[in-house]
Amino acid sequence: MINVALLGYGTVGSGVVEVLNTNQESINKKAGDEINLKYVLDLRDFPGDPIQEKIVHDYEVIANDDSIDIVIEVMGGVEPAYTFVKRALESGKSVCTSNKELVAKHGAELLKIAKEKNINFLFEASVGGGIPIIRPLNSSLTADEIDEITGILNGTTNYILSKMADEGLDFDTVLKDAQDKGYAERNPEADVEGYDACRKIAILSSLAFGQQVDYEDIYTEGITKITAEDIKYAKAMGRSIKLLASSKKVDGKVYAMVAPGMVSTMHPLYSVSNVFNAIFAHGNVLGDVMFYGSGAGKLPTASAVVADAVDAAKHLHQNIITFWSSEKLALSDISTSKKRFFVRINGDLAKAKALFGNVTVVDVGIQGEVGFVTEVMSEADFAKVAESTQCIVNRIRMED
Amino acid sequence: MINVALLGYGTVGSGVVEVLNTNQESINKKAGDEINLKYVLDLRDFPGDPIQEKIVHDYEVIANDDSIDIVIEVMGGVEPAYTFVKRALESGKSVCTSNKELVAKHGAELLKIAKEKNINFLFEASVGGGIPIIRPLNSSLTADEIDEITGILNGTTNYILSKMADEGLDFDTVLKDAQDKGYAERNPEADVEGYDACRKIAILSSLAFGQQVDYEDIYTEGITKITAEDIKYAKAMGRSIKLLASSKKVDGKVYAMVAPGMVSTMHPLYSVSNVFNAIFAHGNVLGDVMFYGSGAGKLPTASAVVADAVDAAKHLHQNIITFWSSEKLALSDISTSKKRFFVRINGDLAKAKALFGNVTVVDVGIQGEVGFVTEVMSEADFAKVAESTQCIVNRIRMED
Repeated sequence: MINVALLGYGTVGSGVVEVLNTNQESINKKAGDEINLKYVLDLRDFPGDPIQEKIVHDYEVIANDDSIDIVIEVMGGVEPAYTFVKRALESGKSVCTSNKELVAKHGAELLKIAKEKNINFLFEASVGGGIPIIRPLNSSLTADEIDEITGILNGTTNYILSKMADEGLDFDTVLKDAQDKGYAERNPEADVEGYDACRKIAILSSLAFGQQVDYEDIYTEGITKITAEDIKYAKAMGRSIKLLASSKKVDGKVYAMVAPGMVSTMHPLYSVSNVFNAIFAHGNVLGDVMFYGSGAGKLPTASAVVADAVDAAKHLHQNIITFWSSEKLALSDISTSKKRFFVRINGDLAKAKALFGNVTVVDVGIQGEVGFVTEVMSEADFAKVAESTQCIVNRIRMED
Repeated sequence: MINVALLGYGTVGSGVVEVLNTNQESINKKAGDEINLKYVLDLRDFPGDPIQEKIVHDYEVIANDDSIDIVIEVMGGVEPAYTFVKRALESGKSVCTSNKELVAKHGAELLKIAKEKNINFLFEASVGGGIPIIRPLNSSLTADEIDEITGILNGTTNYILSKMADEGLDFDTVLKDAQDKGYAERNPEADVEGYDACRKIAILSSLAFGQQVDYEDIYTEGITKITAEDIKYAKAMGRSIKLLASSKKVDGKVYAMVAPGMVSTMHPLYSVSNVFNAIFAHGNVLGDVMFYGSGAGKLPTASAVVADAVDAAKHLHQNIITFWSSEKLALSDISTSKKRFFVRINGDLAKAKALFGNVTVVDVGIQGEVGFVTEVMSEADFAKVAESTQCIVNRIRMED
């Protein structure tokens, strides 16, 4: 019997209990032993809930119980999760977590402790919810040098952009609808400003390149400036606007960025809509690969956490090697990164040409402005032009 | 140092050598040891090729060399691959293979030998080329009961169908073009009749349900009867025609089938075009997930084979548990399987209604015939109607 303690009985935590109960038999078979949920740590009580008898309010009970082999952490936030998880690992308990803030900030350190103790720190659910991406990166794409990872990593913003595109609505209207439906938080900043996606691409980049990528270093732009008009232009170009979290290695330099992008129908991310997430990767021998699924939600996220627990059970005292050193990866300044830009200016084609040279006009019949696509130019060159004028209405990077 | 022998120096075999050479440093790092290619078995000689000094013509040399830890089999076909692989496993050498015929026919037995010997039999490349699907099924989706796997598992047929749709051409014209480009074999039967996809879905079904699924038991229909007119109808419905290899569990019964299907824009497989493959799966707690990438080709396939070799190196004397028992899974007769059908008949709407009751007409302006979609009906009921009349031009299952 393998004893498990669950930290946090919120949405994901109750999902973990539901998954363990629903698929008990097959989970035990795949784990090679009986998974027994011994404790659930939560500050609250849950009278009438079958879980109530397992509830503890004090982490000490779990930390001091040597019979606990695996700790599942689904509280979220850096503290006290970090303190609890570190202590669990140091006392020889494997940890599975869905906590992106914790993993982005302390992943390298926690992996190191797990390695030293010959146990495991697993975090499949921290990126892409139920989509297997961490384990495939770590165990499947091992013959490749990964040179690009680009993901739609936030379901809330993808829902908003999809709904804006489908119904021609503006950002504020759709945000309110998403909040009413529970797809967006009352305080939506972490999602709509790209901070959530930023932490997730930091984790994926650290794994893909084997070194610590600090999320604070990643240029991050949200979707709050995207308008119904921008989406009209996107459609006229046969494209969709997606919040892309991306990390690319070009000539040995790594560029990372979270920003809206104009995605063409040819790209596998084009048709990833609503709350779905997807992660596209390119390997130097594999070529293109994409992983798609439910990027959030109680049961999909719990499915990934429990799959980690099964893996931890199969490797109780054997570390699954993960390459993510604490040595910091210096990201290149995006100012040298080159792209085509979709731009809207107040003015006419002559003005557009005066500012950006050769451009391709996109006409959706909006009076007083002109929309166009520039040739390939650096972020720095674009910024220089943008600073020289007051006429730019919006600009969105072309994802070619 | 981990010594490897490669069986077969054809397309995939030379890809394996290229991948090992290209990414030598990172592969060794991830394997935790130096991967050393000691022998290449091939009947031919390759004068001038750096590999020539490693060429052996007699498998005995490899079988009798105790320093060989891992055998990579990329010859294809059941024999002599089966004899060679079985002998390698019995003598304690792990095996990685891209050979779908071998895995579909003897997977359960070879996995059993590997388990007994505490080594590994790995076959990521046997389905979906470079797409990680075998390992995710085995190691990532372990918290779920899988109730559906549907894949576009054959690149040749997907290329043909995509090209027919894009250019309005008929099957024979596109097949000839595909043969000229090397995307289709001179004898294209295994691809266009669905036999290749059938073996692959047999492998995926065996893994998803943990029991042997015999490919001979799977109803298989190819794409040779799909016409340019069928594609016109598909477009009118906003759908695309794909060769789908599918395995579904409904009320505890498993139905498996390879056949063209009308896929709606809402389905993640809709936009999988050209030579790309994708595998869609549904888990009872995870929901939808999809894996997409290059389903064939020298380097993507070699990438998957080498990733298996890295995994074998990391687990040299430790079996990675795979649930695929030799106990046969009795597939349910598809005659009770229910679907909507798209049907074309020579005649008019009155005739359609007389035959199929309530139908939804799809009009693309072809004289003398009517195209329509039936309500949900069983395969048996459809067959009964079809046998009663001479007027059916074609029928394609709706994938809802």
